[in-house]
Amino acid sequence: MPDKLVRMRRVDGSPSSTRRPVMVAVAGDSAAGKTTLTRGLAQSLGPERVTVIGADDYHRYDREERKSLPFTALHPDCNHIEIMEQHLQLLAMGQPILKPVYDHGTGLLTRPRLVEPREFVIVEGLLPLHTKLSRACFDITVYLDPPEPIRKQWKIARDTTKRGYSVEQVVAELERREPESERFIRPQRRFADIIVRFAPVPERHDPPETPLSAELVLRPTIRHPDLSRILADSEQHAIHLRLSRDEDGRPVDALHIHGYAPPEESHVVRKAIWSDLGVDAGDPPETLGALGEGGHSEPLAITQLLLLYHLVAASR
Amino acid sequence: MPDKLVRMRRVDGSPSSTRRPVMVAVAGDSAAGKTTLTRGLAQSLGPERVTVIGADDYHRYDREERKSLPFTALHPDCNHIEIMEQHLQLLAMGQPILKPVYDHGTGLLTRPRLVEPREFVIVEGLLPLHTKLSRACFDITVYLDPPEPIRKQWKIARDTTKRGYSVEQVVAELERREPESERFIRPQRRFADIIVRFAPVPERHDPPETPLSAELVLRPTIRHPDLSRILADSEQHAIHLRLSRDEDGRPVDALHIHGYAPPEESHVVRKAIWSDLGVDAGDPPETLGALGEGGHSEPLAITQLLLLYHLVAASR
Repeated sequence: MPDKLVRMRRVDGSPSSTRRPVMVAVAGDSAAGKTTLTRGLAQSLGPERVTVIGADDYHRYDREERKSLPFTALHPDCNHIEIMEQHLQLLAMGQPILKPVYDHGTGLLTRPRLVEPREFVIVEGLLPLHTKLSRACFDITVYLDPPEPIRKQWKIARDTTKRGYSVEQVVAELERREPESERFIRPQRRFADIIVRFAPVPERHDPPETPLSAELVLRPTIRHPDLSRILADSEQHAIHLRLSRDEDGRPVDALHIHGYAPPEESHVVRKAIWSDLGVDAGDPPETLGALGEGGHSEPLAITQLLLLYHLVAASR
Repeated sequence: MPDKLVRMRRVDGSPSSTRRPVMVAVAGDSAAGKTTLTRGLAQSLGPERVTVIGADDYHRYDREERKSLPFTALHPDCNHIEIMEQHLQLLAMGQPILKPVYDHGTGLLTRPRLVEPREFVIVEGLLPLHTKLSRACFDITVYLDPPEPIRKQWKIARDTTKRGYSVEQVVAELERREPESERFIRPQRRFADIIVRFAPVPERHDPPETPLSAELVLRPTIRHPDLSRILADSEQHAIHLRLSRDEDGRPVDALHIHGYAPPEESHVVRKAIWSDLGVDAGDPPETLGALGEGGHSEPLAITQLLLLYHLVAASR
């Protein structure tokens, strides 16, 4: 697979310093699954072609300083938003930046790091779609929108194992952050080309190891692969596409990929996504669909494949 | 005096975010007197109107890392030159930067700091005039060019008292740095609008408390105040202006201010500098001419006054 993607690479002969990268935003609340989604994407493109920027690095205050402040790390005033905008503009123009570094382990702001944009720049974080200027820097924008109970589970699991917090601390923090989630994080949903929601299907009783289903809202703000030919406008299949209205009434495509989707249906969707790109793709890379704990999720794999489609299409 | 300068301020009504600051470079080797020159200048303008940037903050490696490198902190490869250029461009356009910070006390690179350009931005350091792109960002460029024996004295005095080195260490370091001083630092002299040299006058035997004399090379690359009317083209006075050729044969004005200059001559020069700006100035601020150790130098005061003239003129 990496071979195939290499063949798709732009060969416009421009010097690397002026080549403009494809810019992708992956926005979402804390523990919404940004890293899991991004990791598989970066691995399938090849790490040497991808720059991943964590927008949390733009925190204005360290953990100790935040304790005495009237807002949480989710608040724009708690972040160097103007500098983030500046750095996104520079990266979009192919320029290097000296990126600040926030250490999630210690909660300290440390020595900055030189970052040169590679072919693809993936910016994942809490607020990459907060301002008009930063939104304008992206070719593709994604918002991760898990149901709150699922996100709470994920946040407890991560913060108690990787960031040294107790369950009670995480729950209290979630509560403290809720007003700012509502005010600053969730409004970014409406600026996304693709909204990704992993959730169980309510009316089904699948075995517990069944992966979560994916519901993708595909806005007509970018050109998605034409799945309507092969996926009937019905709910008879484990994977289906439905013409729909978003929360605000705007027309969208809603792609549902159920966790129990059989391999034959997955195969058809993959083929449709890749054939629309004009590439004779075999199997998708094994890194697609990888979950943090070593598991595999076909809905995640198809979601990542769709993003991969957009990244490669935008790089042409 | 601050009152007078406030009156001279631009009142163009543009919002502060798009107002472009006056950019000044003060380049020179380690311990060439950059901080002493800059401090009096910033104080007389008022600290709230001045942003001082130390270009040493753009060191790419910390002190420990530099130990295993084949070059010293003077080498461009030892500095984020490209990022310095980028930040100078941003500041020149009135934009904020997230400036790296090098701690001279510990030798560590630490948490960066948000810097918003004020009305005047003074960039002092080893390499601000090294590249064409960074030179293009400045309205006024100054190079400090003391004779090497004087600079050696200054460096030993500072580095043994303020940076915890022994005399032997400083002498060895000066020797180690000499090839890079020759190759990268001293060539910046030719890009300066004003070259400042503090030195004793060789043929005189003034008492030891006499301040060093100043020799200023004034290149016709910016419009200097017209001193030729009042300072005869002779060497009969303690302060005199002489039409001269620089090292490379190019025509320059050479302003000599002897350390023993009597107050009446100083007064005439001050008046000439200020009247050319069209301001009825009284006494210059007391901060002009202040030496680190509490002393006063009239040659330094007149040098700073000339720079002040250019800063205010450029801000109009």
